[in-house]
Order: sequence, then C-alpha cells, then structure tokens
Amino acid sequence: FIRKALDGVKAEDITALLYEFLPIDSKYIIDLHAIDMQAEIIRGLDPDIRKQYLKLYQPKELAVFLNQLLSDDTADILHELSVKEREEVIAFLDPELRMQVTDLLRYEENVAGGLMAKELIRAYVNWTVVQCVEEIRKQAENVSRFYAVYVVDDHEKLLGKVALQDLIISDARKLVADIYEEDIISVETYMEDWEVAGIMKKYDLESVPVVNVQGHLVGRITIDDVVDVITEQAEEERQIMSGISENVEEDDSIWRNTRARLPWLLIGIFGGLMNAKFMGLFEAELSRITAIAFFTPLIQATGGNVGIQSSSLIVQSLANPDFVDEGLWTRLIKMFFVALLNGLVLALLVLGANILLFGEYRLSTVVSIALFSVVLFASFIGTITPLILNRFGFNPALAAGPFITTTNDLLGLTVYFFTVHLML
Amino acid sequence: FIRKALDGVKAEDITALLYEFLPIDSKYIIDLHAIDMQAEIIRGLDPDIRKQYLKLYQPKELAVFLNQLLSDDTADILHELSVKEREEVIAFLDPELRMQVTDLLRYEENVAGGLMAKELIRAYVNWTVVQCVEEIRKQAENVSRFYAVYVVDDHEKLLGKVALQDLIISDARKLVADIYEEDIISVETYMEDWEVAGIMKKYDLESVPVVNVQGHLVGRITIDDVVDVITEQAEEERQIMSGISENVEEDDSIWRNTRARLPWLLIGIFGGLMNAKFMGLFEAELSRITAIAFFTPLIQATGGNVGIQSSSLIVQSLANPDFVDEGLWTRLIKMFFVALLNGLVLALLVLGANILLFGEYRLSTVVSIALFSVVLFASFIGTITPLILNRFGFNPALAAGPFITTTNDLLGLTVYFFTVHLML
Ligand SMILES: [Mg+2]
Ligand SMILES: [Mg+2]
Ligand SMILES: [Mg+2]
Ligand SMILES: [Mg+2]
Ligand SMILES: [Mg+2]
Ligand SMILES: [Mg+2]
Ligand SMILES: [Mg+2]
Ligand SMILES: [Mg+2]
Ligand SMILES: [Mg+2]
Ligand SMILES: [Mg+2]
Ligand SMILES: [Mg+2]
Ligand SMILES: [Mg+2]
Ligand SMILES: [Mg+2]
Repeated sequence: FIRKALDGVKAEDITALLYEFLPIDSKYIIDLHAIDMQAEIIRGLDPDIRKQYLKLYQPKELAVFLNQLLSDDTADILHELSVKEREEVIAFLDPELRMQVTDLLRYEENVAGGLMAKELIRAYVNWTVVQCVEEIRKQAENVSRFYAVYVVDDHEKLLGKVALQDLIISDARKLVADIYEEDIISVETYMEDWEVAGIMKKYDLESVPVVNVQGHLVGRITIDDVVDVITEQAEEERQIMSGISENVEEDDSIWRNTRARLPWLLIGIFGGLMNAKFMGLFEAELSRITAIAFFTPLIQATGGNVGIQSSSLIVQSLANPDFVDEGLWTRLIKMFFVALLNGLVLALLVLGANILLFGEYRLSTVVSIALFSVVLFASFIGTITPLILNRFGFNPALAAGPFITTTNDLLGLTVYFFTVHLML
Repeated sequence: FIRKALDGVKAEDITALLYEFLPIDSKYIIDLHAIDMQAEIIRGLDPDIRKQYLKLYQPKELAVFLNQLLSDDTADILHELSVKEREEVIAFLDPELRMQVTDLLRYEENVAGGLMAKELIRAYVNWTVVQCVEEIRKQAENVSRFYAVYVVDDHEKLLGKVALQDLIISDARKLVADIYEEDIISVETYMEDWEVAGIMKKYDLESVPVVNVQGHLVGRITIDDVVDVITEQAEEERQIMSGISENVEEDDSIWRNTRARLPWLLIGIFGGLMNAKFMGLFEAELSRITAIAFFTPLIQATGGNVGIQSSSLIVQSLANPDFVDEGLWTRLIKMFFVALLNGLVLALLVLGANILLFGEYRLSTVVSIALFSVVLFASFIGTITPLILNRFGFNPALAAGPFITTTNDLLGLTVYFFTVHLML
C-alpha cells in the first residue's frame, strides 16, 4: 500500500519525508524502493542524519548503493565512514568506481578536487563528430547532467570543449578539431571551493572542467554542488556574525549546541568584567551624580549598532566582485561623513529627548557629545577591523560578530566616562 | 594597441576592468569591441553602475546592443530605464525580441516571470527526433545554454522534456512521444524567486520550465540567474541582521548610506532612552550602592549575545530544508537546557571573578543570579521571536537584528534591577 502511494514520487521528496521518522522506521520505507532509488534517497540525506542511517547497513549493502551513484557523491559518503568501514566498502565497489573514488579521496573536501566528479565525456581532438557521438552513447548511462564534451590531446591535456548543442547541429563527418571551442575556463584541483564558486558565478557556468598541475583533465564540477557550497558559506557567515563558533544546527544535541555557544559568550563576559572594573575607577563621580549611570546602555547600544552596520557594509563590499574599491582613504573619508551625519542627527535628538525627560541641561549635553564621539569611533573601528582581518587573510565576517560588539562596548564606556570626567 | 591587448579576453573580465575607470573613459574601451562583445560587457555590469553607462547611449544604440542579448537580460536592462526611454528603445528592437520583452516586462522582478527568458527549444509531442534536431538547428543562434528540449502538446501545454544527451543517442526515426520524460519539475509564473531557488536547489536542476496558470509553456529559468538570486538573498539577510534598512552598498552615496542606517539606530536610541528612564526608577538604590551600575554592561551584553545566538539558530533551521522540526515544545525544552547549561557556567565563572575582583559577596551573588536569569530569558525571546515572525509571514531574520538586541537590553536591565531590588 505504501509502495503504491510512493509511486512516481521523486527521491528528493522521499528524503524530505524521512526526516519525520526514526532511522529504523525509515529503513522500512527505503527498502520498498528499487536499488537506484534507494541510493538516490540516501544521497540526498543531510550528512548529520545520514550517519545514523549508514550504521544500519552492512559494507556490502552500502557498496550496492554506492555503485549506483556518481564518484563525487560516493566519495562524500565514504568520507562519513570510519577508516575501517571505508576500506571494507571500497573493496565491494565496481572496479571503475573504485579507481575513481580512490583518486577523489585524496583531496580535501573544500578544494576543487573534493568537489569534482570523475564522470565526464572526453573526446580526443583528432576524433570525428561520429566518434564523439559514439562515445556519448557508450558513456550515457554513467554520466548524468552533462552539457559539453571536453576535448583533450593525446596526452590528456585539456584543449577546449564542444557544447552538446553544437554537436547536435554539426555535420557528422567534421573533425572535433574544427568545431571545438578554445580558451575555456577551467579550475585546478587545489583551488579552494569558494574560488570555484566565484568563477562559476562570474562566467555563468553550469559546469567547469578540473585540471591537475600538468594541465591534464582529471574531473569536472557541476553547478548543483557549487550551489551547495554557496549556501553553506552564507550559513557559516551568519553563524560567525552571531557568535556561534562551531558548525552547529538547532537540531543537533544539547551538548553540541552549548559547546558552540560558550566561547563567544565567555569573551563577552570578559569584556563585561572589564567594563565593570573600568566603571569602578569612576566610583566617585558616579556616587556624586547617579544619573550618569542611566545613559551607559544608550551609549553602548548605539556604539554597538553603528559598529555592526559599518563592518557589515565593508564585509559585503569585500565579498562583492562588482564592488568599486575606492582606496582606503576615500573609504575612511566617506565613513567619516556618514558617521558625522548619523552622529549629528542622533546627538541632537537625544539632547532634545533628555532635556524633555530629565531636564538636566549639563548632563544631557555631555551625553550627546559622548554619543556623537562614540558614533564616530565605532564607525572607524567597524570600518577598519574587517579591512585589517582581510589583509591578514582572516575571514572579515569575524569583524561583524561578538568581537566588534565587545570592543565597542568598552570603547563606548571609555569615551562616555572620559567626557563626563572632563565636563562635569 | 589596446584593442590588441584585449584580444581573446572574456566579456566578464572586461566588465570587471571597467570598474577602475570612469564611465566616459570606459566607453572608449567598450567601443573598441565587436557589437556582441559590447552587449555582453554591458550585460555584465552591476545595475547601480550600469545606469551611468546607459545614459551615454542613444535609444537606437541601446537597441542595437539589446538585440544581441537574451530576452531576460534585455527586460532587466529595460527596467533600469525611465518609461519614456524604455518605449523608445523597445521601438528599435527586432520584432521577435520586442514581442518577448513586452511579455516579460509585465512581471514583477522577484517572481518566476521576472527571472525567466523566452528563448527555449520547444518540440511538439508528435514530432520525430529528426524534426526536433531540425528545430534545434534553426534556433541554435538564438538560444544559448540549453540543456533540454521541452515537449508540449498542440495547445502549448507542457508535457515533459528530452535531455539533449538522450536526443543525441536516440534513433532519428523515433517519435518525441516515445522518448520524452514525463513528471518533470516546472514552476509557475507568479512563484516567488526564493521559492524557485529552493526548488532548483532541492532537485539539482540546471534549468526549469515556466508555465502559466493554464499550464502553457511560457519561458524557462536557468541556474545562473538563480545563483544570483541566492547570493542577493544572503546579502539582504546580512543587512537585516546588522540593522541596515535599505539595499545599500558601501560604494553608494554618503546620503544613501546615512538614510539606510538611521532607522534602526533611532530604534536603538529609543530603547536606550527607555533604559535610562527605567534606571531612573532605581535612583535610590543606585546612590546607596553605586557598584550596582558597574554590572549593567555585563548583564546587557550577555543577554544580547545569547539572544542573537538563539535567534540565528532558529532562523537557520527555518531556512534549511533538511531541518528536523521537532515541534514547538521540544524546541523550547531543548532551548531551556542549553540556556541552563550556558547560564550556569557563566554565572559561576562571573561569581568567582567578581569575588576576586571586587570582593563584595552579596552583590556578586546578586549579579550572578541576575545573569543566570537573563540568559534564560534572552534565550526564550531569541527562540520565540523568529518563530512568531515566521508564523505571521515576516522574514524571521528580522529577529536576529537590532529589534531583538534592543528588547534584550531592556529585558536584561529589568531582570537585573528586579533582582537587586529583591535581594539587596
Ligand atoms: Mg543537521
Ligand atoms: Mg551541517
Ligand atoms: Mg566531495
Ligand atoms: Mg551571473
Ligand atoms: Mg555532483
Ligand atoms: Mg549534489
Ligand atoms: Mg549590546
Ligand atoms: Mg553597487
Ligand atoms: Mg545593489
Ligand atoms: Mg528579470
Ligand atoms: Mg543539491
Ligand atoms: Mg539569463
Ligand atoms: Mg544572468
């Protein structure tokens, strides 16, 4: 009955459905399908969850699934197994896949070599179009989602490509040498995944050939896997921005969630203690005019908000290939004027509000002057920190997170009490 | 000389190069190229910057460029012109492109209709493979990056597709009806762009056909444009998270930068004034024990950090299709335990540090109890706010931004002074 209901449903939808069940029950659902469908379902699972499923199968059973998949997905799944299990599963793979996968497992997961699949259609430059089509016919069941035939010379060196559409419309007796496109974009095995993503995005590519240092064609990366890289990168940056130090998801264990959150919280606590110690230096002023304390949250919150805004805009501009880099000085001058405008508006507004609410002219003036200075300082820190991080090869998004928040809190306090000390 | 140096360079690289020059000088560089290359260069420009270039051309010149481009890019560029200029340019377009573009301009930019191109290869179900190839030959110069032939019935209703690779290897005398794939994924013209992105990501599609409400094939969306949608969405969420209220870039004008930043800063200021007013209520306690004020930054910063962490994890889980929704109660209970653990660790640490640094046992105990409570409260607010926003159809990422920060600041203060009031 269930088998019937699931007829004609896509593997991706079944995968989504499985998240509602326990792995043990899901296995029953998976088992109802044909082997190739079972393999697709397992391929589509979230890696965190897939680990639980992989335990339910014997190495031989896993190998049966993997034999249905492409080399890149097989390598990814093998990476999730222990070394011992991995070796056992590899022993049961079809010889060709075994060879391909053994090559792929050598690469780190976050470089082009770790993203590529070995399956592709290779044409030698001295072939005719007919030979090319013959090769496609032979490879058709192994290679899916292919868009072009890659052209190599006798030494496997990548020369160019023939788009499928050109192959379809060209005369069958023509030589590949006459119709192939030269000067195509390719990436090297050691290139980092986000660089590959940038290139495919820039040139609007749906797939890109991968060459080794000798220029030999060794694999190919398709856009679907790069879309996953782009999504993960965005997710990672959001985590960095919100002070989560480990790749974690809400559905992971309580322990893992706690561990991912504590480090940045501790840094915040350390900053908070320094704040307390610093305010202690002004105990005399504070007991003379208690109202000074009322405005620390206002000053600190504004400093924090301004800092995050500035650093986010810089991080964004560093990530955007279309960004016009006007040079450090133009940047700083512009930052200065934006901060000046914002600072003036906010300081005047707060001055008015404070006089209305509290009536203390002197203190209100001091608060507004401090606020104005804090906006300028926080803008500067927010602008310069990501630029420095970037210069030294760190991810500038770090600057949009708790680090800049903690720094700005302390900075705001310093500026405020310094102004108070001078003027009251 | 420049013309020679630029030989064999890709349009995308020239586009990147132009950002270093003024539009007027760039025009000289653009003019050196063949018309189709000029069109590609202009297509690749960042829309903000392209506006300045478009002014340098007469409607007729623009039409010459646009005639080289696909309908989706043409429609995008036309959207950037004033209504008057748009009409003038449209009048100079080739009749077929004019018809296509007029259709596309009807759609909002952020729905499937605004993403799609009209160029595609359409095969009628009763055709033979030979007729199909004939059609491809005819259309080949109009349609680029095509991966499949879409199959329709006599009433233009979408039935399925034939992948190019299947077309190449199938017998020329076969009927399309016998080889086409049914049950393919398609999207409807009014579907929102992020929904289209989600579908293409889920099913690993490189292109998807677009149908109207009657199920008629009206266009096709390719992955390169969807990759841009995904990138823009990530950028937008980062802006929301950092309290920037308008789509702005660092290289935009000072005025636009200021305007984009002020709204959230004002909300922060409003929160800050409420903080001040609230602390005013406890003036008596504050002047009795000034040291109470020392710990407001610590309490508020921790509350802020915990709140952002919680809301980010919820936002991420809402965006992730692989996420296992364990239901509201499981979520809250889990949140509670994570907060309990984090809160305990932080409170004990701060207790120790405060006794060492300040030596005041009573106040240190009060601070730690307040800190512990604030961690619990902020976690709760951080968890529940994005869920509520999401339930009512708002972007839950809003909760990771200044709104939750401002709320948590006030909340932290309340909890702290309430504890102080009870215990000191
Ligand atoms: Mg997970
Ligand atoms: Mg994960
Ligand atoms: Mg891999
Ligand atoms: Mg693009
Ligand atoms: Mg793949
Ligand atoms: Mg994939
Ligand atoms: Mg704060
Ligand atoms: Mg721009
Ligand atoms: Mg823009
Ligand atoms: Mg459009
Ligand atoms: Mg995918
Ligand atoms: Mg397009
Ligand atoms: Mg595009």
